[in-house]
Amino acid sequence: MTAPRRTPGRRPGGPDTRGEIVQAARESFADKGFSATSIRAVARQAGVDAALVHHYFDSKDELFIEAMAIPVDPRQIAAQILDGPREEIGRRVATVFLGIWESPEGAQRMKALFRSILTSDEVARMMREGIGQMIIQPISQVLDVPDAQLRVGLVASQLVGAAIVRYLVGLEPVASVDIETLIDRLAPVLQQHLTG
Amino acid sequence: MTAPRRTPGRRPGGPDTRGEIVQAARESFADKGFSATSIRAVARQAGVDAALVHHYFDSKDELFIEAMAIPVDPRQIAAQILDGPREEIGRRVATVFLGIWESPEGAQRMKALFRSILTSDEVARMMREGIGQMIIQPISQVLDVPDAQLRVGLVASQLVGAAIVRYLVGLEPVASVDIETLIDRLAPVLQQHLTG
Repeated sequence: MTAPRRTPGRRPGGPDTRGEIVQAARESFADKGFSATSIRAVARQAGVDAALVHHYFDSKDELFIEAMAIPVDPRQIAAQILDGPREEIGRRVATVFLGIWESPEGAQRMKALFRSILTSDEVARMMREGIGQMIIQPISQVLDVPDAQLRVGLVASQLVGAAIVRYLVGLEPVASVDIETLIDRLAPVLQQHLTG
Repeated sequence: MTAPRRTPGRRPGGPDTRGEIVQAARESFADKGFSATSIRAVARQAGVDAALVHHYFDSKDELFIEAMAIPVDPRQIAAQILDGPREEIGRRVATVFLGIWESPEGAQRMKALFRSILTSDEVARMMREGIGQMIIQPISQVLDVPDAQLRVGLVASQLVGAAIVRYLVGLEPVASVDIETLIDRLAPVLQQHLTG
């Protein structure tokens, strides 16, 4: 069975319009990347008015989060990490990031996201650009140290690795150590990456 | 086309005997895990004499390395890491591990290994047991600090994450920073995990 071709030109919203916008956004992020995709271009690809896209999504960021099935809002994550004393940022990073994984639903959705990033070059390319702009750049700007983007990237590497070892691979004893101990061990290392 | 059934009973080595032994080992590691698999059991499963398995493979470790297509010998890696002053172990860990990935062939084979670990629960289970016994346990024993296994697991998490961010996802600027800088940044963090 083949899907019917998308009809050209603008049309009013139907029952599945929101889903079609998300699909058009996914195609645009895949074809052009995060930066070159605009609300206007997504509207054109979906065959709807840009105002209708804005009716469902406040921003391109929101379209990206939904198109990529990101289980949390990266902008909120960035805000939580930045909110507090500079010398405790390593601990906040560990607490916020691992907190997502510690809920069964969060873990399930993060696992699916990680697996699609790690097995599809296209998804990896979209994510590194979107996450770069939504998390790494804002945190780097606030940090205001030399090499800020490299530092934040190294933090990402430690977090990604900890999640994979604990939740995806289940390597002991990291997999079953209590979460407070894990945060205690990661906090100074993340702090070192960021401000050491 | 279906493969001919493996004939029961012992038989002398044929032209494909080595490959059949590796296949039998892979099945045994998958069914029973690393610890419960023996050279004798692999021989039985392959329908050959245990002496013939020993003719091709010195140990169960070697069978595992070949069956899992591990691109380097984890025992050599462990030995290289342990050979030298304790206070520079973080730097040696980073240098040895990233050195594998910096060669194009090593990167390609490590990528394939990582992807199969991260997408197959069965491969993940086999690897966490095999790598646990071949790398994490020997290093933990030599370290002789409390929580040694947790420390080595955290080192593994940082290394895995750095490899994923740099080589699999290509997140900038970690992806294109020169390797000496990356080692300089990871060394103190790995040292902190191990002896901090």
